[in-house]
Amino acid sequence: MNTEDQDTRWMNVAVKLAEKGVGLTSPNPCVGAVIVHENQVIGSGFHEKAGLPHAERKAIADGTARGNAALFADSTLYVTLEPCSTTGKTPPCTEAILEHHFKRVVYGSQDPNPRHRGAAADILGRAGIQVTRGILEKECDHLIRGFRLNMLEGRPWVIAKSAMSLDGRISRSPERSQWLTNEKSRSFVHTLRAECDAILTGGNTMRLDNPSLTIRKPDRPVSSLKEQPWRIILTHNAASIPADSVCLTDEFRDRTLIVENVSSYLELLKNLYNERKTGTVLLEAGGCLVREFLKAGLVDEWVGFYAPIITGGGADGVTGGSFLEREAFLEQPVVSIFGSDVCIRGDVSYR
Amino acid sequence: MNTEDQDTRWMNVAVKLAEKGVGLTSPNPCVGAVIVHENQVIGSGFHEKAGLPHAERKAIADGTARGNAALFADSTLYVTLEPCSTTGKTPPCTEAILEHHFKRVVYGSQDPNPRHRGAAADILGRAGIQVTRGILEKECDHLIRGFRLNMLEGRPWVIAKSAMSLDGRISRSPERSQWLTNEKSRSFVHTLRAECDAILTGGNTMRLDNPSLTIRKPDRPVSSLKEQPWRIILTHNAASIPADSVCLTDEFRDRTLIVENVSSYLELLKNLYNERKTGTVLLEAGGCLVREFLKAGLVDEWVGFYAPIITGGGADGVTGGSFLEREAFLEQPVVSIFGSDVCIRGDVSYR
Repeated sequence: MNTEDQDTRWMNVAVKLAEKGVGLTSPNPCVGAVIVHENQVIGSGFHEKAGLPHAERKAIADGTARGNAALFADSTLYVTLEPCSTTGKTPPCTEAILEHHFKRVVYGSQDPNPRHRGAAADILGRAGIQVTRGILEKECDHLIRGFRLNMLEGRPWVIAKSAMSLDGRISRSPERSQWLTNEKSRSFVHTLRAECDAILTGGNTMRLDNPSLTIRKPDRPVSSLKEQPWRIILTHNAASIPADSVCLTDEFRDRTLIVENVSSYLELLKNLYNERKTGTVLLEAGGCLVREFLKAGLVDEWVGFYAPIITGGGADGVTGGSFLEREAFLEQPVVSIFGSDVCIRGDVSYR
Repeated sequence: MNTEDQDTRWMNVAVKLAEKGVGLTSPNPCVGAVIVHENQVIGSGFHEKAGLPHAERKAIADGTARGNAALFADSTLYVTLEPCSTTGKTPPCTEAILEHHFKRVVYGSQDPNPRHRGAAADILGRAGIQVTRGILEKECDHLIRGFRLNMLEGRPWVIAKSAMSLDGRISRSPERSQWLTNEKSRSFVHTLRAECDAILTGGNTMRLDNPSLTIRKPDRPVSSLKEQPWRIILTHNAASIPADSVCLTDEFRDRTLIVENVSSYLELLKNLYNERKTGTVLLEAGGCLVREFLKAGLVDEWVGFYAPIITGGGADGVTGGSFLEREAFLEQPVVSIFGSDVCIRGDVSYR
């Protein structure tokens, strides 16, 4: 394998590590790192939570614990995101890299944080460390799509989730099962919740479905560090939310907020990000609220489940009316199969 | 390989052959046949058109032409459907099998035609020919799902096709492209038309879209024997269909019928089957007509395309209102990807 193939191979390992941090790290990005010496991983780590060490320091600590510190000077550090170069809750990672005289540093994404952007390459380069950037950049950028938006627009990344019939409806006649989608799909929704810092829903969903919005049955293991996401209920009248709702009475009731009469969804999102560090928000709501967010251009990612049922009636997944001024397009949608259900997921662009 | 595996293997070849006849054979079923001698195919064929020889006779003719007739008495004939045992437009296939003293006959589906059902095994068995039935029965039954319905209910199999946005709409704002789905999806629709004997649409679609409903750009080769499917336009007022519509003026205009004020879709379908031998009909229509067919339990198969766009408004793929009394379920839906579009296809059951 040539150097480029090697770089891609090891960066891929770093990406997989970073993915373990999805949903845990807000307001920080998820980052993975591996230290490679003569084609062997001698240390690895990922960022697990804001306040805990960054991925680079985790990898260095791991390599040190494994007795490999003496090899660092002849090793390459692969990290999905440009190492930070300023002091936050933890000291800059560039310092740790310099301390251990790494031979080479390879990173994927440039840090969208204006305080760091592009600085690491200079700092490391001046110390004689070889720096290569942009390896698996697309994949690394995807990992931090929420974080980038947080930095650029000061608001959370919004994932809208909808579970529909083949004719775009989200409800069934009252005598039928509450659910359209199957258990596998619903289990994936629990995993999706684990990717997020808050779940937004509407008063109507609370009154009709009384959801718990918890991570009870994820289809993949969820870190013990994951907290119950905030549950944000948007309503015109707080008193209309039944006092015995699951979200208001269960063990996580202190993670539920009722917000009355929102005049700007953008302001709401900015406040959530600023006050509660919610880097990613999941919109699990009925067609009206989904439509309002789409109209405002505030759905950044779409996760749509389609159950193999035609109901012929019921509430729309996206409430109709006039066309959206800017249609919402899914970029390179990814299709997953959950039993007989289909899930179509992709980042949204408005055109 | 044991006999069972061998049987499955060769029946699979027969199924693939039969598939070449899909859309060509109405009112007959599509059938494929292979003659196997000592693990070699020595003759094969499929039914190409009503009036032309059945698959068994095609395979026998092929084997004979290849100089293999002398081997038939030591060969197995694999055929997807029970050989016919009565004289129709052509003499019974059981006779041809007896004439050539085949050693063994293996078939997949039992013939749903009450004049044949189960008779072949008796006729052949009495002549000392070994008969095995039910090999790849599910696959063979799937091939003749339309034919079975024709036999049992005296009406065509109805495939409803819809191309929707992710929110279940079939139209876009007027200043945008007419199409939601991409060229690959639309090309597959042309192939789908080639599977059918007639295309049903509504007056509104004619007035708004002026479709040609032809097989111009199929994504797979289409037999030169395929005729332009009938184009049936359902309307309350024939005069409302523009006289310069493509369907009324193109080279296939004699294959277009306008039907006014249908009082029963079931009767319409029965008439189409009886008078024009349309074994399979494609419903390519707007949400109102699709809903009417669903309400009547007359959609037998669903082919739904989903384009990666949320329009937020426009006409519904299935017009809303009260729930269907019996929801339409897709049995074991098959998901295909056409670029960024997703196609979900399956047979419908009403529950």
